[in-house]
Amino acid sequence: MHGFITVPRDTVLDLIQTPEVQRLRRIRQLGVGYLVFPGAEHTRFGHALGAMALMQDAIMTIRQKGTHVSEEERTAALCAALLHDVGHGPFSHTLEHELIRDFHHEQMSRALIARMSERIGSDALSLALKMFDDSYERPFFHQLVSSQLDMDRLDYLRRDSFYTGVVEGSIGVQRIIQTMRAHPAHAPDARVVIDAKGIYAVESFLIARRLMYWQVYLHKTVVAGDEVLRSIVMRARELLKNGLTELRDITAPSFLFFLENDISSADLHRSDVVDAYANLDDSDVLFSLKQWSKCVDRPLSDLARRFTNRDFFRVLFLADTPDPIDVNRWREVVSVHLQTAGLANESNRDQIVDYYFKINHSRHEAYEVHDDSIVVLEPDGSLHELSQTTDTATVDALRRFEVKPYICYPKEVSLNLQSVRAGLKD
Amino acid sequence: MHGFITVPRDTVLDLIQTPEVQRLRRIRQLGVGYLVFPGAEHTRFGHALGAMALMQDAIMTIRQKGTHVSEEERTAALCAALLHDVGHGPFSHTLEHELIRDFHHEQMSRALIARMSERIGSDALSLALKMFDDSYERPFFHQLVSSQLDMDRLDYLRRDSFYTGVVEGSIGVQRIIQTMRAHPAHAPDARVVIDAKGIYAVESFLIARRLMYWQVYLHKTVVAGDEVLRSIVMRARELLKNGLTELRDITAPSFLFFLENDISSADLHRSDVVDAYANLDDSDVLFSLKQWSKCVDRPLSDLARRFTNRDFFRVLFLADTPDPIDVNRWREVVSVHLQTAGLANESNRDQIVDYYFKINHSRHEAYEVHDDSIVVLEPDGSLHELSQTTDTATVDALRRFEVKPYICYPKEVSLNLQSVRAGLKD
Amino acid sequence: MHGFITVPRDTVLDLIQTPEVQRLRRIRQLGVGYLVFPGAEHTRFGHALGAMALMQDAIMTIRQKGTHVSEEERTAALCAALLHDVGHGPFSHTLEHELIRDFHHEQMSRALIARMSERIGSDALSLALKMFDDSYERPFFHQLVSSQLDMDRLDYLRRDSFYTGVVEGSIGVQRIIQTMRAHPAHAPDARVVIDAKGIYAVESFLIARRLMYWQVYLHKTVVAGDEVLRSIVMRARELLKNGLTELRDITAPSFLFFLENDISSADLHRSDVVDAYANLDDSDVLFSLKQWSKCVDRPLSDLARRFTNRDFFRVLFLADTPDPIDVNRWREVVSVHLQTAGLANESNRDQIVDYYFKINHSRHEAYEVHDDSIVVLEPDGSLHELSQTTDTATVDALRRFEVKPYICYPKEVSLNLQSVRAGLKD
Amino acid sequence: MHGFITVPRDTVLDLIQTPEVQRLRRIRQLGVGYLVFPGAEHTRFGHALGAMALMQDAIMTIRQKGTHVSEEERTAALCAALLHDVGHGPFSHTLEHELIRDFHHEQMSRALIARMSERIGSDALSLALKMFDDSYERPFFHQLVSSQLDMDRLDYLRRDSFYTGVVEGSIGVQRIIQTMRAHPAHAPDARVVIDAKGIYAVESFLIARRLMYWQVYLHKTVVAGDEVLRSIVMRARELLKNGLTELRDITAPSFLFFLENDISSADLHRSDVVDAYANLDDSDVLFSLKQWSKCVDRPLSDLARRFTNRDFFRVLFLADTPDPIDVNRWREVVSVHLQTAGLANESNRDQIVDYYFKINHSRHEAYEVHDDSIVVLEPDGSLHELSQTTDTATVDALRRFEVKPYICYPKEVSLNLQSVRAGLKD
Repeated sequence: MHGFITVPRDTVLDLIQTPEVQRLRRIRQLGVGYLVFPGAEHTRFGHALGAMALMQDAIMTIRQKGTHVSEEERTAALCAALLHDVGHGPFSHTLEHELIRDFHHEQMSRALIARMSERIGSDALSLALKMFDDSYERPFFHQLVSSQLDMDRLDYLRRDSFYTGVVEGSIGVQRIIQTMRAHPAHAPDARVVIDAKGIYAVESFLIARRLMYWQVYLHKTVVAGDEVLRSIVMRARELLKNGLTELRDITAPSFLFFLENDISSADLHRSDVVDAYANLDDSDVLFSLKQWSKCVDRPLSDLARRFTNRDFFRVLFLADTPDPIDVNRWREVVSVHLQTAGLANESNRDQIVDYYFKINHSRHEAYEVHDDSIVVLEPDGSLHELSQTTDTATVDALRRFEVKPYICYPKEVSLNLQSVRAGLKD
Repeated sequence: MHGFITVPRDTVLDLIQTPEVQRLRRIRQLGVGYLVFPGAEHTRFGHALGAMALMQDAIMTIRQKGTHVSEEERTAALCAALLHDVGHGPFSHTLEHELIRDFHHEQMSRALIARMSERIGSDALSLALKMFDDSYERPFFHQLVSSQLDMDRLDYLRRDSFYTGVVEGSIGVQRIIQTMRAHPAHAPDARVVIDAKGIYAVESFLIARRLMYWQVYLHKTVVAGDEVLRSIVMRARELLKNGLTELRDITAPSFLFFLENDISSADLHRSDVVDAYANLDDSDVLFSLKQWSKCVDRPLSDLARRFTNRDFFRVLFLADTPDPIDVNRWREVVSVHLQTAGLANESNRDQIVDYYFKINHSRHEAYEVHDDSIVVLEPDGSLHELSQTTDTATVDALRRFEVKPYICYPKEVSLNLQSVRAGLKD
Repeated sequence: MHGFITVPRDTVLDLIQTPEVQRLRRIRQLGVGYLVFPGAEHTRFGHALGAMALMQDAIMTIRQKGTHVSEEERTAALCAALLHDVGHGPFSHTLEHELIRDFHHEQMSRALIARMSERIGSDALSLALKMFDDSYERPFFHQLVSSQLDMDRLDYLRRDSFYTGVVEGSIGVQRIIQTMRAHPAHAPDARVVIDAKGIYAVESFLIARRLMYWQVYLHKTVVAGDEVLRSIVMRARELLKNGLTELRDITAPSFLFFLENDISSADLHRSDVVDAYANLDDSDVLFSLKQWSKCVDRPLSDLARRFTNRDFFRVLFLADTPDPIDVNRWREVVSVHLQTAGLANESNRDQIVDYYFKINHSRHEAYEVHDDSIVVLEPDGSLHELSQTTDTATVDALRRFEVKPYICYPKEVSLNLQSVRAGLKD
Repeated sequence: MHGFITVPRDTVLDLIQTPEVQRLRRIRQLGVGYLVFPGAEHTRFGHALGAMALMQDAIMTIRQKGTHVSEEERTAALCAALLHDVGHGPFSHTLEHELIRDFHHEQMSRALIARMSERIGSDALSLALKMFDDSYERPFFHQLVSSQLDMDRLDYLRRDSFYTGVVEGSIGVQRIIQTMRAHPAHAPDARVVIDAKGIYAVESFLIARRLMYWQVYLHKTVVAGDEVLRSIVMRARELLKNGLTELRDITAPSFLFFLENDISSADLHRSDVVDAYANLDDSDVLFSLKQWSKCVDRPLSDLARRFTNRDFFRVLFLADTPDPIDVNRWREVVSVHLQTAGLANESNRDQIVDYYFKINHSRHEAYEVHDDSIVVLEPDGSLHELSQTTDTATVDALRRFEVKPYICYPKEVSLNLQSVRAGLKD
């Protein structure tokens, strides 16, 4: 996709060979997305390399525009770009909140970078950690690693557009990077800005990102797969809590660790937690799901089979949040169906139905104006926040928070939906 | 770009072989654009074939969705798509208003299609002319040929994006066509609508078109080349009017016809006018310009040399329309320069300066809401104009008419610009 | 890659939803290849869809050239293309001979198609099985499914070239298919031939395939990964045979089935064998390998860790088969190293060394002239085998069987290689 | 196609602005090829930039592998790559031998580079001229500019493949350049060699080039267009010689210069010859042809009309050189036809027929083994000529000189061809 990527023969190459980074080869970039877009089987590993490659370009541009970047800083920035997503778990965002409470994958990236830094004893890595944490004295490095226009976003948009075949997501990454600079060039607190001639490319990037959200990341069938997978994990956790010990034997150990224990983000200092996480990838989940499809618990085996054979729920986007009366009515219909189908009985159907009928919403904000907003350097030397420049007709519109409610339920159930207005995407 | 295009072995193939269509091989698609984007040397011929190929796809989709299209209608629609731009003249839009007064190239397309129809005596062509004119009883054919979402726009955006390398202009043409239908399917007055699932692709198309306007079609250097070329034509016309007969000998005859005579759109019924036009292409203009660069008239030879060697004016976009006092001051500076440079003398410099100093503006409206607006078919069967649908955050913003004033003048002149605020793109 | 693939809403769509086909989503197309080419993480599922899509094109072309194909035949041919590789196991070719003795994956494809046909009771599937088996009365269908120019090869070459980024492998698939026909058009025993104008495209295809073999499929590091993986499986099988029961607990059950039992191709009639195979995919192997990297058996844990972290053997291609004296010398050096490293002891090092030092060869024949060879239809109606036509300068050269011996051993061992001549690719 | 090309802001940028280089914008790369491949309207200008861009890459690679290249040498090499084809005339190769006797365009490139060097007084240009002439002391620079694996060939193959859509011609340019080096790295007489790992890419390049010759450069319809154009020029020259003065008035002056005068390669020292040539491009020829289509001379007007409207001759490739008896017979049939059609009369038909009936041949040698052959550096440090390496199965086959005889004649004539065996490509 990028042509050959050149990897510096130093710390960066060593890092690529670590188990932590190699593990990313076993975590698909789009979670369940590959079940919807057949070509989108790419993993976090390629994305990590890609973000690192874009960081090389960004540093080169920034140097060419007169800002000094030392070799140490460059190596650290490459490491930070390479490792920014190293804390992603199996199925990326789908299970992010199911395995660890109050969790964001960046917390685990930080924990893993710290662990690698200690093990390897690398100055570059400790500097990379500072950049990642925004505790380094030159803030533009953090912006390149993590902001609304960072190497992460530039790479994943292009990459996901390429592999899904959704051309609306294709963006001019090189063009955008070429219009970046650290400004003022020699100031200690220089920040990333965009030359005015780059605003069309940036506007195009924001719009492409929004379209990718609604067409790919929050695609109806992707959402359906996510919901099935989350139901499975919730059910398995419930069964283990209730002492179904035989489930332990058919669950991958690292996965089991997070299902049996109630781990929260406060536990990331524990080495057993980090070790278990570092050993967990898509294959553990896929393997466990295949096993579970033969589990004695009917709901779990049914849900696991659905996932493995891509027999997902129906997802229906709604124009408005549904009336609670409708919701209760639908819930009852699903509940009765489950009993009829032998997936629940009189006594537990009220509980089981929660795995099969859900009301939820997707949300996305294309561009946020706050202290991390995108800044444009105009020809006369003045600086303006992107949505304040004169030529960006659509940016203002992108600041709206878009929320889409949906319900999901088994395809074989038929609900009376006369009272609701469907959202556009159904 | 499209893979191989299949051409029906009938009227359409015959039409491609006509001198009128073959002439499009000698008219570059982007006028002076190829002088700015080295890869953009493509001609109107490829675009005509491309629009025809997309019409094939559109007809197939519309048939698949249940609307009957007869073979005669299909052939006529293909012809109309192939010929929609046959009335373009040399350097496409640049000289559109310089050769014929009160002119739009569609008028000449109509005149040429009528001429071809008479000569060939083809039923398909007379039906094509009706579709082009919107006088055919099924209006959706006209919409496919000429509307805000016609085959013309779909093809040229993709094509120009491809050849210029401006990826922001790339669009999902196939996706858009696949979401089109004639609605109601069996109604005599069915019109083109977009299925709701296509709105992201259409929104992306509108935005891509806007970005292509500012980045390509109205690119500063393209505008500069346009202005030089227009000055040349104005000067040549002036000299011929004033009796510089030797200019006649170094001008291509068909080009000369339009420079010596004052042709307006009211003259399109004259066969000598249509014949001369049908014989005129880029090579006549390029040939004449090369000759003129040795003309005794210093302004003409200077301007012609500038164009041939791509030594264009400087174009400066301004945030606001400039103050007339500034304009007069700048004009005087250019005027003095021309006299010093021997391009004008005391008596004619007030006239000559008009070829070298201009104040003008570029304008573009990405999406117009009127009776030709884009209509969306929602899942519940209701129809909404695109900007009224709930999921199109940015379409409303695209309805704004954007106008950018600019001045242009020779690069070797230095103007005092302290009082003006530059536009973003300078 | 292909744009959107259209799937017929019939048997074919039903088949795609079966567990057998969905399982292909969990088997990477290039086995260990994704560890060498970061973008090549695509699976057999996309290839199956792609081969089916190409079959659609081939049938359309053949019909257009006057050969009748019934709808039943078309559906069966699409099914056969979709299912031709359904018998591939985890890591595709790498483990093909390690799991089942005397095995070729086509045998399992046949067994699985038969099983699906029985379960579903589909006429299309039984016809597809005949086409696959070459027992259908119209032989050209079999040729489209399985021959030197079948949909399988056309799809995988293009696909693997695309995802690896090795442009030498890119081929004109559409061009080749467009020059195919069944000949004589109306003969009951019509066979696939190539129109003469397609010979350059076919020649280019053969050469691209050869280059893909040496640059991708038999790439040195791919070969190295294959050898490590085979050593692992051999060791695990040995340990299980010797009664290391704790290994059973850390092995995926379906994988274990093939390691504990000595299954050969003669056992494919057994439903337990087919069931276990149908349940086995990459995730079982990856999961087991991760577990094994903590196994008490040092060689197994060492090899498993090497694979998981991509720390493969060194592979050295040789110009000639090495002298047995050299081989024994090298073997001894590796053996001593293993003992020093604590991976073997005095008593078992002669056995353990076989997992770490191997002598083997890669081989490839680009084009085979036999009864399945490619036939060209010349303009005068005569038929010639491809290498006999006048315009194919290089085809004859492609008939040579190329064999490349190699040795492989741990990177940390240093061997004295003065006496051997390295092959070109080292 | 290449992404954005970065142009050094020095001599190279100045050169691009010269009339000599800007003239290449008006010379189509593939001569009449754009009339066969609708997308192939690209000009020599883009190719010149592309070859220069590849030279940047090649110099970078060579420096990285330890060979010193001074900044002066680098600039000169870029200039040489940019200007290597500056001597091409209108319609590139088609008219190469029709305008100037005993001519090769490289002679004119040399003359023009010398002229530019004198005018500009640039050291870089005089060094570039030495590299071009192979009179510079470090021969590898000449090899990069002009050899069997030079930047010219690498760029035009990729470019022409891209614009024609003939995927068989696509090559791994970056891969090839990355395997180049100057060897021995520090030797004064270092020459370009290919690292052994690049041989597949080079083999693929040679084969792609051969396929492009037969599928594009020597495509039957391209050959037909070439023959019509050559007949036109021959006829115009004949008419001018015979005193048809009115033809002078309808011919572009620079073109006329070469038709009226008998210029040979011995005249390239004359400044009037070089000036006329530097002023001549496609537009002069296209303009003249359009005028000539109304000339009083029937053969000239007929031929000019054929060309302008793409109504070419029929070209028939033959398996063998035809029998002189057949040739005379066919010639007589065409001759009679011309008289009947009013294009010739009794007295001149024997002369006119030579414009309408031709026997000729196309020829191509994919790879020549001589002192300029491609050399491979094997892992053991030895050097071998490409066809002598062990891994290049097909290179030997590419050394064959392929010759294809053909006849061409007006499509409306029907010849008895029973006695001849058609070549494959008809």
